[in-house]
Amino acid sequence: MCELFGLSANRDVLVNFTWRGFLERGEIHYHGWGVAWYLNKGVCLVKEPRPASKSPIAKLLLSGVKSRIVISHVRFASQGEPAYINTHPFVRKLYKREWVFAHNGDVSGIMGSSEFRLKYYFPVGDTDSEYAFCYIMDNLRELSEEVNSIIKTSKTIWELADEIGDYGKFNFLLSNGEYLFSYMNRSGTLHYLLRHPPHRVYVKLEDEDFEVWLEEIKSPDEYAALIATKPLTNEEWVPLEPNSLYVLGDGSILLKVNNRGKLEHMLSETEVEVLRLVRTNPRSVELIRLSRALGLDLNHAYNIVRALIAKGFLRKDRRYLVPMNSPEARFFTEPKRRELIDTVVLRVRP
Amino acid sequence: MCELFGLSANRDVLVNFTWRGFLERGEIHYHGWGVAWYLNKGVCLVKEPRPASKSPIAKLLLSGVKSRIVISHVRFASQGEPAYINTHPFVRKLYKREWVFAHNGDVSGIMGSSEFRLKYYFPVGDTDSEYAFCYIMDNLRELSEEVNSIIKTSKTIWELADEIGDYGKFNFLLSNGEYLFSYMNRSGTLHYLLRHPPHRVYVKLEDEDFEVWLEEIKSPDEYAALIATKPLTNEEWVPLEPNSLYVLGDGSILLKVNNRGKLEHMLSETEVEVLRLVRTNPRSVELIRLSRALGLDLNHAYNIVRALIAKGFLRKDRRYLVPMNSPEARFFTEPKRRELIDTVVLRVRP
Repeated sequence: MCELFGLSANRDVLVNFTWRGFLERGEIHYHGWGVAWYLNKGVCLVKEPRPASKSPIAKLLLSGVKSRIVISHVRFASQGEPAYINTHPFVRKLYKREWVFAHNGDVSGIMGSSEFRLKYYFPVGDTDSEYAFCYIMDNLRELSEEVNSIIKTSKTIWELADEIGDYGKFNFLLSNGEYLFSYMNRSGTLHYLLRHPPHRVYVKLEDEDFEVWLEEIKSPDEYAALIATKPLTNEEWVPLEPNSLYVLGDGSILLKVNNRGKLEHMLSETEVEVLRLVRTNPRSVELIRLSRALGLDLNHAYNIVRALIAKGFLRKDRRYLVPMNSPEARFFTEPKRRELIDTVVLRVRP
Repeated sequence: MCELFGLSANRDVLVNFTWRGFLERGEIHYHGWGVAWYLNKGVCLVKEPRPASKSPIAKLLLSGVKSRIVISHVRFASQGEPAYINTHPFVRKLYKREWVFAHNGDVSGIMGSSEFRLKYYFPVGDTDSEYAFCYIMDNLRELSEEVNSIIKTSKTIWELADEIGDYGKFNFLLSNGEYLFSYMNRSGTLHYLLRHPPHRVYVKLEDEDFEVWLEEIKSPDEYAALIATKPLTNEEWVPLEPNSLYVLGDGSILLKVNNRGKLEHMLSETEVEVLRLVRTNPRSVELIRLSRALGLDLNHAYNIVRALIAKGFLRKDRRYLVPMNSPEARFFTEPKRRELIDTVVLRVRP
């Protein structure tokens, strides 16, 4: 058995508080621990085949890991003996990006099966986890340039997870440095938490007598989404739906591929309305216009716009030199999210 | 261009002082840095594709890496773009042990050559270095159980290094967790330092205004051997002989395979005399007998015995309950060093 911890945020954040709670779990899961984080597009990775709770490095790192995407793992070996090469996370490169993977479960059946023969990526260690990762990477590689489509990539990962998941428990965290993908196929074995502003709440670690006033450690426009095997704090952790792939980016859940392989967004109705209005307009749209069209007061409309900016869906038109919350401020959809907006939010067929 | 740093010691030591000097070099070698160390037989490894001098993790690790064997690398990419998968050191497992490798130089010619076709170990990244490592591991694997012979293994590594070295600069550090192997084929591009007691000396870092009185940070029976591209301190760093493989263990140079592939030890004549006397005796040998046979006073004889214990060649016979320096204290040769003593020190044919 192992435990997983993942983070997606809209800016580089220190993960010390919640991750500290996670590393405590290393007392039970004592065969090793690892943490990978992205530094721009490069991966940094620390792994040790010993308990995190006994590692001075793990303690030191608590004040040193700052990133938008973090994947961490504590391990109790089921497959493969305790060794560096069997310690999660694993890294492979696909075209210009490095991908990181960590797994909780057992799908060792795929290792002997001819259906899962590897072509291009091969494991260095002995685990079924690294094998499954190589199989996923082989298939993503076959997408060729389509790997740049978040829709195509998410659907492919879901299909592969669904296929591998037939062989046993398959909970994983996967990232390409921009998105964090999370999948679970056994109820209640992965949870997510959205830590969005305002951060006016006392947070207490589950396993330790340690409490913080979140506003003190989080800036007002910091969005983070966390994934963990078990809730790590007294906040509102939500169980993942089984056999669903969650796609996290910029501290939010951007997309879900549900248990029937269908795409779902996680936005509110009003957020969808704002995106429809802005996306279908040939030019950028004024805040005042949004406020009127939606029948919302200006401040409310601005709060929705601000959230959509934090989640990476909207961007302010900088040619209009007015403050963000001015009625004349204008907004357009973030180019990198347009595929997602069109396909999943607005259901526009290309 | 890159720089290498290696350490072998007779006990777990903190590498903070000299390694600190090494990491300063990360300002020039800015494509990445990595450090691997052994924790018992397991490997811990930290790698980042960014300058060590800008890494908070590197600073934190200065007080956290404690081991008998350390391999560190700062990288200026010549082959393969800056990425985690191209950052040294690399790890592979052979039978029960994990091996670590870091390289300085360029032998990219071997990657296209049919003579260097890989069989069992394959690179994850794009570097000639990882490729060369896989080639070495493939060949060590073919030794089968003979990989447990330090003589056979050292000769094999020397032969492989000699072969690969025809393709360019090939300086490397390699370890199996017990021995540290070091090879260089360009004069003056690797140096070793023996830091043996008494540690009564002021040591100053070359690149920084930083000085320590070694006795304060080293215990009186701490033996360490260090390898670095350039001298890191004002101590007596010795250039490695080109095309020679140095085999370090327990903080000493145990063995050298010279540029003609011949085995040499690095012991003094008196040390060899002591080992001959003890090894050829059917029982353990008394200190007083050693002292008389060699014509040395008891204290001098004891000092030689103590150094041979630190270097892992001798062991006290615990059945004789007298202090180590008593005339009646008895010593025998360390079983793990007998192959080395017989073959290299005493030139006994089996």
